[in-house]
Amino acid sequence: MEFKSEKLENGLVIIGEINKSAKSAAVGFFVRTGSRDETGNINGVSHFLEHMLFKGTDKLSALEVNEAFDRTGAQFNAFTSEENTVYYAAVLPEYLAEVTELWTQLMRPALRDEDFNIEKNVIKEEIAMYKDLPGFDVMERCRTLHFDGHPCGNSVLGSEESIDNLTAEQMRDYFASRYAPNNIVLACAGNFDWDEIRSLVVNSCSSWHKRTTERVLSHSGGSRRKERLEKANLAREHICLMSAGVSAQDPRRFAASLLGTIIGDDVGSRFFWELVDKALAETASMQFGAMDGTGAFCSYIRCSSDNVTKVLDIVSAIFDDLILNGVTEDDLTKAKNKVLSALVIKNELPMGRLVDLGFNWTYLRRYQTIEDDVGAIKAVTVDDVHSLIEQFRPGDFTQFSLSPA
Amino acid sequence: MEFKSEKLENGLVIIGEINKSAKSAAVGFFVRTGSRDETGNINGVSHFLEHMLFKGTDKLSALEVNEAFDRTGAQFNAFTSEENTVYYAAVLPEYLAEVTELWTQLMRPALRDEDFNIEKNVIKEEIAMYKDLPGFDVMERCRTLHFDGHPCGNSVLGSEESIDNLTAEQMRDYFASRYAPNNIVLACAGNFDWDEIRSLVVNSCSSWHKRTTERVLSHSGGSRRKERLEKANLAREHICLMSAGVSAQDPRRFAASLLGTIIGDDVGSRFFWELVDKALAETASMQFGAMDGTGAFCSYIRCSSDNVTKVLDIVSAIFDDLILNGVTEDDLTKAKNKVLSALVIKNELPMGRLVDLGFNWTYLRRYQTIEDDVGAIKAVTVDDVHSLIEQFRPGDFTQFSLSPA
Repeated sequence: MEFKSEKLENGLVIIGEINKSAKSAAVGFFVRTGSRDETGNINGVSHFLEHMLFKGTDKLSALEVNEAFDRTGAQFNAFTSEENTVYYAAVLPEYLAEVTELWTQLMRPALRDEDFNIEKNVIKEEIAMYKDLPGFDVMERCRTLHFDGHPCGNSVLGSEESIDNLTAEQMRDYFASRYAPNNIVLACAGNFDWDEIRSLVVNSCSSWHKRTTERVLSHSGGSRRKERLEKANLAREHICLMSAGVSAQDPRRFAASLLGTIIGDDVGSRFFWELVDKALAETASMQFGAMDGTGAFCSYIRCSSDNVTKVLDIVSAIFDDLILNGVTEDDLTKAKNKVLSALVIKNELPMGRLVDLGFNWTYLRRYQTIEDDVGAIKAVTVDDVHSLIEQFRPGDFTQFSLSPA
Repeated sequence: MEFKSEKLENGLVIIGEINKSAKSAAVGFFVRTGSRDETGNINGVSHFLEHMLFKGTDKLSALEVNEAFDRTGAQFNAFTSEENTVYYAAVLPEYLAEVTELWTQLMRPALRDEDFNIEKNVIKEEIAMYKDLPGFDVMERCRTLHFDGHPCGNSVLGSEESIDNLTAEQMRDYFASRYAPNNIVLACAGNFDWDEIRSLVVNSCSSWHKRTTERVLSHSGGSRRKERLEKANLAREHICLMSAGVSAQDPRRFAASLLGTIIGDDVGSRFFWELVDKALAETASMQFGAMDGTGAFCSYIRCSSDNVTKVLDIVSAIFDDLILNGVTEDDLTKAKNKVLSALVIKNELPMGRLVDLGFNWTYLRRYQTIEDDVGAIKAVTVDDVHSLIEQFRPGDFTQFSLSPA
């Protein structure tokens, strides 16, 4: 493993972790922008823009983009979250340069009015489709309630109304300010030639213009409000709980992940034994999500309406017990084994490695080896977890419930 | 990479591909049994039995099984198909022996009456849930229509009726005959110590009794019948097409996979450009599936009822054109790039490698390196694809449609 990095004059950072024994290679553009960087009247523009990048450039039609990916045999896609928009591809090593060159072109899209107008309907269909998924809908509603005006509560997809009102001109303005090279990291992982990729990127991207990009960073303690909404056609109760946590920059993020695993991993967690194994809930999970300057624990529970009161009583009892008795060494050891094996297995594949490599640079502006992260997880103590519980009190949660009408 | 294999006296085969540079290890039991090995009155028993293995042994309760997996941090699961039942886990190297030892115990389950009776309801709920997924339902119905009495048309889940009538005694008999050691391959991949795993398996599994196990092997040309069923609450037309292909033992299986990719890959295929890109169908894909002694191409198309006639006309035109004009060198090159990159990326992770390793041994009784498979795919010619088209005529398909009422 060898790590390389370079910052172009316009601020674009190129990083790469070269693993000559890998059988594939992966490339990704990590744009530090998402729904939290949007104002209300353009809510959803980050995700919409992600779709538009595949519509081509001044030189490439959408059809040609599709054919160009096709030739490389790439596994490629993109995703948008509250704070990142990521474009990636995994390929055989001999195609990495070709697919990287293609992405560098797509990162300066044409954003044509006619494509924008057609794609608007696709976005609106996607919003409608997700609204029909109660597990997704309840989490989005809970996030908005929890963040309570803080930009991390903005919807990634936007609303039908905000998308309807969005203009192509607004999107082009947003693109110009957020896709500035100094707001982007290009990462590569796996078996590739650093010099080849580096010079290709220098050639293609040096003409991009630097621009001041800002992001408002503030911690959110969460509203801790409780809301409930009845919805027709629901057969089950869907409950989302959120509470505050540490940021992606905080060394305690590993302890927070372990706490989430102890409470709400799919199997063997407190939620599992008390709710799922006892057949009171069909699913009950908790995860910690670290963000830029803030963080949150998020739980999702699905159960029959008959069991809601009992389920919520047990959830309260689990959190009360955490405050009183904390976690055990055995809890922590089991959680570490799970988190470590998931981390190592994910990072073993260049495509998985790419994601951690890109996000570590985006959030920390530094290179972390897998061994760095493994060491940090192994070093977490029971006391570290207890001090997190004391400070953040995961039992003081915001709650949103979607109930059968 | 080093390959090791050993056959115990009772017929159990242990194989392993050791990759000391891997960061994880994976283990799997590949039992050569599935719904095609069932008679009508016990249909669904293979899949039901897979669930029962997690209920424990004479020495381990279900709770202890769960906790035992939990300690290792394993990513573990199982699946049942028409001809295989596979139990697997991926872990950090230091836990492979522990998780392998656990699997060897679970492979001799208690199959308690009370667990059987409780789990029966879980299976029936799973059947009901899948019946509600029209994309799944139409494929299962089409498979039964296509195989027309051939055992490869048996449902994996079984019917509510067959599961209702199944007794624990019948399951125990099925287990005794199908989980004989001579019908099982234990495979390991990644970073592990062969001698440690080998001696552990010898200790745990040598007492298992050999038994004659049979499977009826015959090719199926398919019924080529067409059926249509109206269903309430459907918003879309779901269409499944199946036609005959080569077996998993046939060297032409790679050419068949490439043909499936040319016609029906998610992007860039004939179906994609003619149906999806033109917005006539929301999804249209084709895949080739090789089986023991037979094989089949399977397509799935979802579209609005208004477009059905047009969509089916275009599908016929695509198949007619294949007979008349075949495929081009460019088609084949693009398909090879896709199939090769998917193969290499999948096999790069020990867990992905395990699956190919186990299935290659199950079907071919031999070790294939990744390079062997890559070489075989690269060697496929346009003429190979044309001779497949001539022999199997994918346009002569069985068709099942689920339509809005």
